[in-house]
Amino acid sequence: MRIDSIDLFYAAMPEVTLEADGSQDALLVRVVGDDGSVGWGECEASPLTSISAFVTPRSHGVCQPVSASCIGEEVNTPADIYRISALVARNSMDLLQAAHTWSGIEMALWDLLGRKLEQPVWRLLGYSQSYKKTVYASMLMGEDPQSTYQLAAKAVKDGFKAVKFGWGGYGEKDPAIDAEHVMAAREGIGPDATLLIDAGQIWEDDVEQAALRVPALQSARVTWLEEPFFADSFQSYASLATRPSTVAIAGGEAAHTEKMAMNLIDFGKVKFIQIDAARIGGIGPSKKVADYAVQKGVTYVNHTFTSHLALSASMQAFAGLAEHKICEYPAEPKSLAVDISSNHLKPDAQGEILAPDAPGLGIEVNLAGLTPYLRKVEILIDGKEVFKSPDLVI
Amino acid sequence: MRIDSIDLFYAAMPEVTLEADGSQDALLVRVVGDDGSVGWGECEASPLTSISAFVTPRSHGVCQPVSASCIGEEVNTPADIYRISALVARNSMDLLQAAHTWSGIEMALWDLLGRKLEQPVWRLLGYSQSYKKTVYASMLMGEDPQSTYQLAAKAVKDGFKAVKFGWGGYGEKDPAIDAEHVMAAREGIGPDATLLIDAGQIWEDDVEQAALRVPALQSARVTWLEEPFFADSFQSYASLATRPSTVAIAGGEAAHTEKMAMNLIDFGKVKFIQIDAARIGGIGPSKKVADYAVQKGVTYVNHTFTSHLALSASMQAFAGLAEHKICEYPAEPKSLAVDISSNHLKPDAQGEILAPDAPGLGIEVNLAGLTPYLRKVEILIDGKEVFKSPDLVI
Repeated sequence: MRIDSIDLFYAAMPEVTLEADGSQDALLVRVVGDDGSVGWGECEASPLTSISAFVTPRSHGVCQPVSASCIGEEVNTPADIYRISALVARNSMDLLQAAHTWSGIEMALWDLLGRKLEQPVWRLLGYSQSYKKTVYASMLMGEDPQSTYQLAAKAVKDGFKAVKFGWGGYGEKDPAIDAEHVMAAREGIGPDATLLIDAGQIWEDDVEQAALRVPALQSARVTWLEEPFFADSFQSYASLATRPSTVAIAGGEAAHTEKMAMNLIDFGKVKFIQIDAARIGGIGPSKKVADYAVQKGVTYVNHTFTSHLALSASMQAFAGLAEHKICEYPAEPKSLAVDISSNHLKPDAQGEILAPDAPGLGIEVNLAGLTPYLRKVEILIDGKEVFKSPDLVI
Repeated sequence: MRIDSIDLFYAAMPEVTLEADGSQDALLVRVVGDDGSVGWGECEASPLTSISAFVTPRSHGVCQPVSASCIGEEVNTPADIYRISALVARNSMDLLQAAHTWSGIEMALWDLLGRKLEQPVWRLLGYSQSYKKTVYASMLMGEDPQSTYQLAAKAVKDGFKAVKFGWGGYGEKDPAIDAEHVMAAREGIGPDATLLIDAGQIWEDDVEQAALRVPALQSARVTWLEEPFFADSFQSYASLATRPSTVAIAGGEAAHTEKMAMNLIDFGKVKFIQIDAARIGGIGPSKKVADYAVQKGVTYVNHTFTSHLALSASMQAFAGLAEHKICEYPAEPKSLAVDISSNHLKPDAQGEILAPDAPGLGIEVNLAGLTPYLRKVEILIDGKEVFKSPDLVI
């Protein structure tokens, strides 16, 4: 089939706060084939900028809008999706935001193709089975250790077997206070659940600042310390990762190319590689990173803080890897992220979820639910409309 | 002084072609201080996308528009510019395009500060002198070897002591044809001039495709082979760079963080690091890469394909490094790139130019010259204007 149209929908909460909560807005992508088939995807963060990267006038031959490489292309096999990805990489080489825009479109193409071929995306990627994943509740650190304790206790009561805390000032305070938060989190979840800590790049490239927090992380039996440094501070990552410690180092969510993630494995020496399919260029490059992780003895983890459409998309790349068991799960999303889809991947009694065994991504976009959140964007250049938010109803 | 306003001006040629010619459009940045001081800068590529990254509604605490971190900030010393850069890096962490947008603003802040303090920017960076640079004419490969020969001969006749050819199909053809182009270029420039070849990422990460071209590059005494691979294919870079050859490997123009450039030095083993100040986050991070290059025995080179405002900005970081002698110079820019400024950095009889010994960047923006190229942008969200192209006249 041929790609007939690609529609971008900007949705947001009525109020978007300064919390590090990525579920406050969304850019949804609908791809329609010339046979009427429909697929959906989602781009991560800053919808207006990603819309602009789709429609921007070209600056030159390798700074073309993302739209130039996909509208009108044939998509009949996975190889077609990889082929169009290569076109985007070439034609939008100098357009930095292109990777984020393309990610949502690429996802939608896998959804479209899976629905057309009546196969789940993970099967199109070569997996014969989708394995259950243990979800971790991804949460912002409490305002004080007591709040962190309560959040942790509630997450376990809600059925989570693993919990991650981060942001909310972690790493900026006295290491002793950071340690209190970490110990409170361990007390809150009890001795058996998995505890993860996310530093959100707070120490930039300062290895010693990170190292100061490691003893408390060890005491609390934290499985990984995530993103201690800038995304590409590989020397700092490697320096911390190769020190003797029971705490593994994790990172990778900012990777906007598959090579960037592979470099974090090779040069940053991380033990968990966390990929956001909505940033790295979609599901295809995520799968390549998963293959590389297997080869290098590194564990693949999804990075997801938005809707269950994005969650399903982010699970496809490692759905068939039984031993790559842990899975990020937005535990307290804003209502937008819930209302985007009519079905959801709810953890079972073991705190596990499964990438759907259904055509495409297996998630149904809830048009009625989405409608109240839509924001109307218009972009004009010299009075001529280059973008206008499309209608949800085809 | 306090930053009162930041204005973004999108300018373009009447027709923007598919040539790999970055001089076809521009995004100019004007920063005005609360004492009326003015500074100018320029962002690289896709003006509409970079404008959107400046004004986009925030998605969350670390995906804020670039404007949120700079309007109203105090700028009295170079340390203030580094401080605001760190704010942008933090507050716009998840906004990929932010680095490109910020680059032009950062340049304008150095220009503003230099004019206020009546110092050239290179002196504010700590250099006591600006050394002459040998410019190389940066040109697209001819359609056939004969055209390449003629272009090469003309460049030398025009006074250039160094010439770079690239794009226009180089690397996609039979290696024998590529070799003919390279030999024609050497014949055209004669035995004494410096010859450089730019592969423009054409071999993606295929080391053997690159290696096939190296014998011809050696025969033609090519100084460097530039960007053989994707910007972050460090393993491929290192594999090619560590083979015995007289041809050095160059790269780095795509770096949008200083770490990315440092990684290309450390892990990619390049011998020339090429930095575009209009992409990496401006002049401050460029200077940090220059310092690192000196420390690692690597030669720093600017990457510039646009106006002389961008050229001067790109020279500041290595203006004081006498031994880092070679400098990219857009030899055949479109009229826009010429008309942006009223003064220009013209090569002398030795084919050399000097970063101006004048306040700021030492380049005067030509308001009358720029006017015919201006494109008017309007962005509305829910009917409310979030951006409208400002007036050139204050």
